Amino acid sequence: MKRKWLCFVLAMLTLMIYPVSAFAADAPAPADLQIGLDTAFTFLAFILVFFMQAGFALLEAGSVRMKNAGHVAGKTVLTLAIASLCFWAIGFAFGFGDGNNIIGTTGFFYGGDSAASHYANALGFSDVTMNVKFLFQMAFAAVSLAIVSGGMAERAKLSVYIIFGILFSVIIYPVVAHWVWGGGWLATKGMQDYAGSTVVHLTGATAAVVATILLKPRLGKFNKEGKPVIIPGHNQVLTVLGVIILWFGWFGFNPGSALSPMGGFFGHVALTTNIAAAAGGLAALVASWLYFGKSDIPAMLNGVLAALVAITGACAFVQPWAAIIIGLIAGAFTFMTAQWLERAGLDDPIYAFSVHGIAGMWGAVSTGLFADPDLIEANALVGKAGLFYGGGLHQLGVQVLGVVGTFVFVAVMSFICLYIIKLVIGLRVTEEEELMGLDISEHGTYGYPEQMKLITDSEKK
Amino acid sequence: MKRKWLCFVLAMLTLMIYPVSAFAADAPAPADLQIGLDTAFTFLAFILVFFMQAGFALLEAGSVRMKNAGHVAGKTVLTLAIASLCFWAIGFAFGFGDGNNIIGTTGFFYGGDSAASHYANALGFSDVTMNVKFLFQMAFAAVSLAIVSGGMAERAKLSVYIIFGILFSVIIYPVVAHWVWGGGWLATKGMQDYAGSTVVHLTGATAAVVATILLKPRLGKFNKEGKPVIIPGHNQVLTVLGVIILWFGWFGFNPGSALSPMGGFFGHVALTTNIAAAAGGLAALVASWLYFGKSDIPAMLNGVLAALVAITGACAFVQPWAAIIIGLIAGAFTFMTAQWLERAGLDDPIYAFSVHGIAGMWGAVSTGLFADPDLIEANALVGKAGLFYGGGLHQLGVQVLGVVGTFVFVAVMSFICLYIIKLVIGLRVTEEEELMGLDISEHGTYGYPEQMKLITDSEKK
Amino acid sequence: MKRKWLCFVLAMLTLMIYPVSAFAADAPAPADLQIGLDTAFTFLAFILVFFMQAGFALLEAGSVRMKNAGHVAGKTVLTLAIASLCFWAIGFAFGFGDGNNIIGTTGFFYGGDSAASHYANALGFSDVTMNVKFLFQMAFAAVSLAIVSGGMAERAKLSVYIIFGILFSVIIYPVVAHWVWGGGWLATKGMQDYAGSTVVHLTGATAAVVATILLKPRLGKFNKEGKPVIIPGHNQVLTVLGVIILWFGWFGFNPGSALSPMGGFFGHVALTTNIAAAAGGLAALVASWLYFGKSDIPAMLNGVLAALVAITGACAFVQPWAAIIIGLIAGAFTFMTAQWLERAGLDDPIYAFSVHGIAGMWGAVSTGLFADPDLIEANALVGKAGLFYGGGLHQLGVQVLGVVGTFVFVAVMSFICLYIIKLVIGLRVTEEEELMGLDISEHGTYGYPEQMKLITDSEKK
Repeated sequence: MKRKWLCFVLAMLTLMIYPVSAFAADAPAPADLQIGLDTAFTFLAFILVFFMQAGFALLEAGSVRMKNAGHVAGKTVLTLAIASLCFWAIGFAFGFGDGNNIIGTTGFFYGGDSAASHYANALGFSDVTMNVKFLFQMAFAAVSLAIVSGGMAERAKLSVYIIFGILFSVIIYPVVAHWVWGGGWLATKGMQDYAGSTVVHLTGATAAVVATILLKPRLGKFNKEGKPVIIPGHNQVLTVLGVIILWFGWFGFNPGSALSPMGGFFGHVALTTNIAAAAGGLAALVASWLYFGKSDIPAMLNGVLAALVAITGACAFVQPWAAIIIGLIAGAFTFMTAQWLERAGLDDPIYAFSVHGIAGMWGAVSTGLFADPDLIEANALVGKAGLFYGGGLHQLGVQVLGVVGTFVFVAVMSFICLYIIKLVIGLRVTEEEELMGLDISEHGTYGYPEQMKLITDSEKK
Repeated sequence: MKRKWLCFVLAMLTLMIYPVSAFAADAPAPADLQIGLDTAFTFLAFILVFFMQAGFALLEAGSVRMKNAGHVAGKTVLTLAIASLCFWAIGFAFGFGDGNNIIGTTGFFYGGDSAASHYANALGFSDVTMNVKFLFQMAFAAVSLAIVSGGMAERAKLSVYIIFGILFSVIIYPVVAHWVWGGGWLATKGMQDYAGSTVVHLTGATAAVVATILLKPRLGKFNKEGKPVIIPGHNQVLTVLGVIILWFGWFGFNPGSALSPMGGFFGHVALTTNIAAAAGGLAALVASWLYFGKSDIPAMLNGVLAALVAITGACAFVQPWAAIIIGLIAGAFTFMTAQWLERAGLDDPIYAFSVHGIAGMWGAVSTGLFADPDLIEANALVGKAGLFYGGGLHQLGVQVLGVVGTFVFVAVMSFICLYIIKLVIGLRVTEEEELMGLDISEHGTYGYPEQMKLITDSEKK
Repeated sequence: MKRKWLCFVLAMLTLMIYPVSAFAADAPAPADLQIGLDTAFTFLAFILVFFMQAGFALLEAGSVRMKNAGHVAGKTVLTLAIASLCFWAIGFAFGFGDGNNIIGTTGFFYGGDSAASHYANALGFSDVTMNVKFLFQMAFAAVSLAIVSGGMAERAKLSVYIIFGILFSVIIYPVVAHWVWGGGWLATKGMQDYAGSTVVHLTGATAAVVATILLKPRLGKFNKEGKPVIIPGHNQVLTVLGVIILWFGWFGFNPGSALSPMGGFFGHVALTTNIAAAAGGLAALVASWLYFGKSDIPAMLNGVLAALVAITGACAFVQPWAAIIIGLIAGAFTFMTAQWLERAGLDDPIYAFSVHGIAGMWGAVSTGLFADPDLIEANALVGKAGLFYGGGLHQLGVQVLGVVGTFVFVAVMSFICLYIIKLVIGLRVTEEEELMGLDISEHGTYGYPEQMKLITDSEKK
């Protein structure tokens, strides 16, 4: 009888403790709540990365002359349009479809949540609904393409950008993404690239520098002695706004790559991201002060961006103190390489290769130095400890391999694509068109009609 | 005895399986978690829609001349102020209060969450807390009003915009919202308008075109032969930024209208929204290339917006492939109608009626063509299958009825309001004031004082 | 036997009702879901407050002349960099570390989530993970510093801003934050400052006004008779955009301070915040119309900001109707005090002290008038009922004490710091440098090179 009573009391107790709401027929299951929460979180991350295009539009347009500003800004909207459609039709399948070590082969013309099975290999680890995963990845592809557009500024034909943009979104970016994030050979090797120092930034920057080289410098960039002439951007306020927007959007890029707020690990990523950016900006400001004798605002802005690019790959793997070091080095080093490359004859109008390429490489390498095995284990991250945490040269070697592999692949592919385009339609507008500016030559109207009238009137005198 | 033991074991098992956390006195109930999650999600949607005002400010200011830019931008802040106060006092009650088929009659001077009972009929279906529902709807009303402001650009008195803005926020917009979303006669008929192609965009655009007609064209818009003269906007970079902000904000407008991330359906809405926008931008770019011989950036921007307007109503009801078709047609058609209307003598400075009105109509009609019954059933949406999914002409007829009803009501109401304002105080600034610009005539200072000094100096010569 | 059966049925029933998902080994516990949700919500709030820096950059740059605009905008990026690093190293410990009534003494060089125990006293009440709490507080410190930068516009050396910015982020702001939010003496007295009318805005504005006084007016601000001359900002469109961004970001500042969406109370905060801003903008517009005979757009913008500043402290404590009154008074009063202070000889280029200081004081005092005890009790807020809710003079006295204490502390500290800087390196650029503008004198290039060339060319004639 005692057991009977005990049993009765236990059952009653269970019922009483059980939250009332759970009896409601429509009470949500905790697992469904987590799916909803993770999906909403990743959606927030997606729109932040999407919004980075506003930052690129301003950064790039503010860094060019008034006669090209409407063209450069407008190309960003085109970037979104091209990436949205091309990645939907083909790029997503090549990048994240199930396939082999090199490329995905399933899931073309992405068909909505019910198509999730095509991408199980790469994206099945997270409970975020597939539509939002797709949008998040699409926004990353668009960022990579936006970097390319910088290298073409002020002299490439619009049609060249459209054709190359399609090829880049369809094949170049997706293949690299597949290698690292889609279960490809670099993933197998354990390459650490949390949010894309290599996949997104180095890929875009490598294509940009190939375009820059093939396009040759802008008219007037080098004087008769071959020394670089400063061609200042027309609007630093817009450039500053662009960089703040990019910094803001990066809180989707990096922390959002956790794809879930559960456990709060994304907060660690946000912390390292922010503090690296701050350090990079200060380092570049000081570097410019020492080098020019004046603190240079565009240099500081590029320092912030370079640090963000570098920490993009490392953000999950490193401690805050290491993030500061990574940022400081990225900021100072980007400033110096931008000067060196320019003196070496490269005209990269918005320093795309220094900011996204060299800092992207440093981001990959620095992870091989500073990756903390405790963070890797606690958060089930890919790869092993870095050199300074007793990991030896193994992870560092993997990172270097990833950088070299990505650079070579993207450089070769971009060269082939652009060289063929050059042969068929030519890359560059005519000298006359370049002098009058691409706003009027490519689009028939100035982006700043009233101000350009003043400028052209004053030039006539 | 066996049963007694079994019973005991079962009870113990239940207790053991039960998550430990649930015993904690303050463990949240799943239903409360969902309320929190849904409310946070809808709040995110609200702030995105709120932020669309930044997009309108830039789009409209960038599309006018420098002498009117401060005035036009400043009106957007006024739009937020008017909509916030008028919708709070009266508009929300007319729109979403319980009432009859035509108008709501309860809940004036919205009093906070505890006032939820006044709006049970229209908004009781969702568990989002009422304050956030109110803010979300208020932001929609403000978007509709921002569209109106475009039609008045560069020649209407500020006082006219304030008075008409109050009337629009108090009565015109709320009545249409009540018809479709507040349980009114169009809701009863099963009209499909997920996020407001008709309610928000067509309503605003219809009021804008009535204002445009009554105000008459800007000085110099038509030459002596009656042919339209292009009056280019002063800053394409700001226009581009405005459009990217609007595209970004639209991810609150459309996916946010799900009012919950549960089940992930909002991701489908985000997908159709994004891909339609991309298609619309490309279609308009190509259309302008064919028509002008040059790719036109403002045309591309309007193509993006037109596609977003069209997909706003359809986004939940259609598949991605249909979204692309809807966007392509919206982009191309808006470009053409903008040309036609201008040649017909209409001076709509930012093409508000083409972009928001005609594309809004297309959005409503296209839903009647492409609405997929599987999506409707799986997500408990209103209405029936479209023509191309075997639904016959029924849903298409409802959609056309909604468009015609909204257009006629808003046109008549706007005409009456504006005509009375015209008789009492006049709609338009004097010719002299228009020539000097509304910045100086309405506000006493230029928005761009240093640049306007250069322009006026150069005009004096 | 009946009991045995009953017991068996109850146990079975319990098992059956129990949601299936809860049996899954990896089903999340509701308490963990709430941590994830609250952390994601606070992260959203953080990024919105972070983004307010874009608003400050535009507001401040748009309100100065073209020759200083790059410098002023660039300083905002520096603000983020300084606040991020200084608050990480020292400020967070002084502000939120466990310590005494005056200052925190634990938790220097913030070390990540595992360091939470250092801040248990101040931040232990919320389940948000510590990294995100840190970032949220860091963003508040950066906003306060951004306000300081306004008072230094157009004449202070960059180095002065850097040095003072470091001191402000390390010691001045953190001490005030500790007093009110870190368990200090004002917290003990029950001071009500929900999101920082006093802590963030009055602190920043007091430092700004001390800088403004020590720096003396800009050249040409007062004519020979000592009457103020209007020096209009160069770009109202950017100023408008800045204010919309700030209004948008304020939805992180105020509602985000709830640190959780659970229960939906943050929606009340969002409602009072929004309606106060709307009322403030209209009040200032009307005030300027009455005073100048023209509606003044910068006045309206400052009215919006002043109302936002005032409601920042009161937002959680007051009803919507009171929020409207607080906003109306803030908007009108800020407009008048801006005129008075200018006529009294103060040259505060972006009216930082009127908008953030006087409105900040009014926000603190108004809470002592309108604080509703029902809201305090239902939401476990600090302090007691205001004067108009039968609370007598007690809470009002606490609020006044907080305002006076903060003002005196910040004014004395800022004066000491700036005076020492003045003695050592001097605060102000030379007269020649000020005339050529700080873009070129401090950074070596114009922010608007092409437009400045036109201006300097036209001045030469």
